[in-house]
Amino acid sequence: MEIKKEFPIFDDENLHYLDTAATSQKPQVVLDSIERYYKNYNGNPGRGSYKLVMDSTRIFEDSRKTVQRFLNAKEKEEIIFTKSTTESINLLAYSFGLEFINEGDEIILGITNHHANIVPWQMVAKKKKAKIKYIYLHENGQFDLDDFKYKISRRTKLVAFSAVSNVTGVVHPIDEVVEIAHNNGAYVLVDAAQALLHFPIDVLKSNIDFLAFSGHKLFAPMGIGILYGKRQLLEKMPPFLFGGDMIEFVTEQNSTFAPIPNKFEGGTQNVEGAYGLSEAINYLNGIGYDQINKIEHDLEMKALFELRNLGFVTTYHTENVERVGVIAFNVNGVHSHDVAFILDYYGVGVRSGHHCAQPLMNYLEIPSCCRASFGVYNDAGDVEKLIEGLRKVKEVFKL
Amino acid sequence: MEIKKEFPIFDDENLHYLDTAATSQKPQVVLDSIERYYKNYNGNPGRGSYKLVMDSTRIFEDSRKTVQRFLNAKEKEEIIFTKSTTESINLLAYSFGLEFINEGDEIILGITNHHANIVPWQMVAKKKKAKIKYIYLHENGQFDLDDFKYKISRRTKLVAFSAVSNVTGVVHPIDEVVEIAHNNGAYVLVDAAQALLHFPIDVLKSNIDFLAFSGHKLFAPMGIGILYGKRQLLEKMPPFLFGGDMIEFVTEQNSTFAPIPNKFEGGTQNVEGAYGLSEAINYLNGIGYDQINKIEHDLEMKALFELRNLGFVTTYHTENVERVGVIAFNVNGVHSHDVAFILDYYGVGVRSGHHCAQPLMNYLEIPSCCRASFGVYNDAGDVEKLIEGLRKVKEVFKL
Repeated sequence: MEIKKEFPIFDDENLHYLDTAATSQKPQVVLDSIERYYKNYNGNPGRGSYKLVMDSTRIFEDSRKTVQRFLNAKEKEEIIFTKSTTESINLLAYSFGLEFINEGDEIILGITNHHANIVPWQMVAKKKKAKIKYIYLHENGQFDLDDFKYKISRRTKLVAFSAVSNVTGVVHPIDEVVEIAHNNGAYVLVDAAQALLHFPIDVLKSNIDFLAFSGHKLFAPMGIGILYGKRQLLEKMPPFLFGGDMIEFVTEQNSTFAPIPNKFEGGTQNVEGAYGLSEAINYLNGIGYDQINKIEHDLEMKALFELRNLGFVTTYHTENVERVGVIAFNVNGVHSHDVAFILDYYGVGVRSGHHCAQPLMNYLEIPSCCRASFGVYNDAGDVEKLIEGLRKVKEVFKL
Repeated sequence: MEIKKEFPIFDDENLHYLDTAATSQKPQVVLDSIERYYKNYNGNPGRGSYKLVMDSTRIFEDSRKTVQRFLNAKEKEEIIFTKSTTESINLLAYSFGLEFINEGDEIILGITNHHANIVPWQMVAKKKKAKIKYIYLHENGQFDLDDFKYKISRRTKLVAFSAVSNVTGVVHPIDEVVEIAHNNGAYVLVDAAQALLHFPIDVLKSNIDFLAFSGHKLFAPMGIGILYGKRQLLEKMPPFLFGGDMIEFVTEQNSTFAPIPNKFEGGTQNVEGAYGLSEAINYLNGIGYDQINKIEHDLEMKALFELRNLGFVTTYHTENVERVGVIAFNVNGVHSHDVAFILDYYGVGVRSGHHCAQPLMNYLEIPSCCRASFGVYNDAGDVEKLIEGLRKVKEVFKL
């Protein structure tokens, strides 16, 4: 496979990485961009007026424009750099949540949400005496929009959901959720951490209020994330991290704050991460979502077919539903950690446990599961090793 | 110079970087560690039980131990990874500040503090109706400890100060400040962002309660920072960023949290940054603080001598005081930005402006200044170019 060769970690031919939903591997072009940055342009952006400062500022702001185009945001000032999806959502919880959600208000979350999109809202709900409700699922794993319509009301201030379940790979209908939310006067946060590796999201066309994602799941370095927000909302929100570069004037007792995006970017920013993210986006665009989807879909179909053929594996939410390259499964009667442990002997990396989604696990009435997730660098050999490993699980546990 | 050759950005011989106090350049060994991590060990730490997860978890936790030894902390769980000094201080402000500082309490800050160690405390003071006081200075730029003793009382809950002024390079007496604070029942936060490149700090011996610093000022990649805190304090503090890996159990309406340090490390952690920081610490230890200080001190003495000889330059807080390799100065009658702009033509990078320390600038009654700061990779040629550039400033402005 040509694409696999662009990722140097796969020089180890015994590595069968099926955990891209946890973090993606990095292509050489992204690693090269890190080195290029530090060897030629490294400075503290915005803090001075000499060459390296101007270079690093330009690279940081150009990276912001790349992210703007990637999401089709109207303005680059609507793109806030953070360290992760988790920080992006916490920024929104502390700033928007504690400022605009009040006693008696309601927050509606998807039951498929990652903890990062649940626990910050529990904090807000506790502090502000607001109420949290969950959108439950159809049998196929997708949101039951009737349940959503029944639960939403004028008391709902925010609907926060994952566009793609990190456990099952099920895709929820963004446009419909946004429309129902807006019809009830609620704002929408889309957690796109699991989505953007598989399909594009147009924040303008889908009329999304807030969107969060991480670089590290998208071929980019660790330590960089994004919060998108509509200008008129970001402008009303108070700052979150207080420090250098997000202020206008500081006296001993008072401060005034810079306009967006700087208002939300206190402290020295991670230019390496921003540049690496923009190079990762360029890399992804170079392959194109069509090819990505074809590769991932073919692998997923092959894997599902072979998993079903084994006869001792249960999969979750894999039928009659729009999905991306993620399969949640259990070997019947064997704990997911034991399965992952044996698969590791075959060089197969799958994640096991609750996947930071305990409410979904409770809803599904399973204590844990394995998750195999596919990236554009996977190939049929990876699926075959997975199946070979699972046959060994059967043998070891005498199923 | 041998050391300069270890930093690839200085392959450009026309680069005279005198802004290490803003951010340091990176040695090749640190760049190599980034590439090594992504090519061999990249996984999402703590989330699974296969090889790459175990590798990345081990690297992350070994890096924590390196930082623990660097600060001589008692336990590795007292080391919290953040993205920056700014995030570390904000974590403390949101968690310790909003929880333990109450109406009528007082926070004492150094007048030499960076905005990152002022503005978060203004937020806490406003929300909790607490009061902020400042430690003023002797004529030499160091804390006036009599002023401090006069201002501190049993109402003081926290004393937060920079060990080294980021503008003037003056070193404040950590042990004395800690002793006076503790005698009054107050806790101490040391902002060590400007200190650790120049001298070691022993948190145990100095009995420091909290300490913050960034990797990027210490030869490490961007996007990684540290908060040190004593175990008994960290354990009492509520979480800050809510998300994956910092929880124990999550139900639809409630969560319980993991023990330290995980309680404060929500979301996918920046393993690249942690590993890069540990390699940077190893690099720094390899050179040794003695050699670092000798190089920086010699350059600073040479620069001060030549700056004074010019006859049209004013320096701030450069006499009769313990200092590190940072010089604040103005060309008499010329704005600092104009000076930096002309120096840039000579390849000399100095910072100009208020240096994220507006209260200090007001206290000094200057609108702005230039700052030249020295790192271990600087040499006499860099100082000579600075002086050459300043002579040009004189010529251009007909001084």
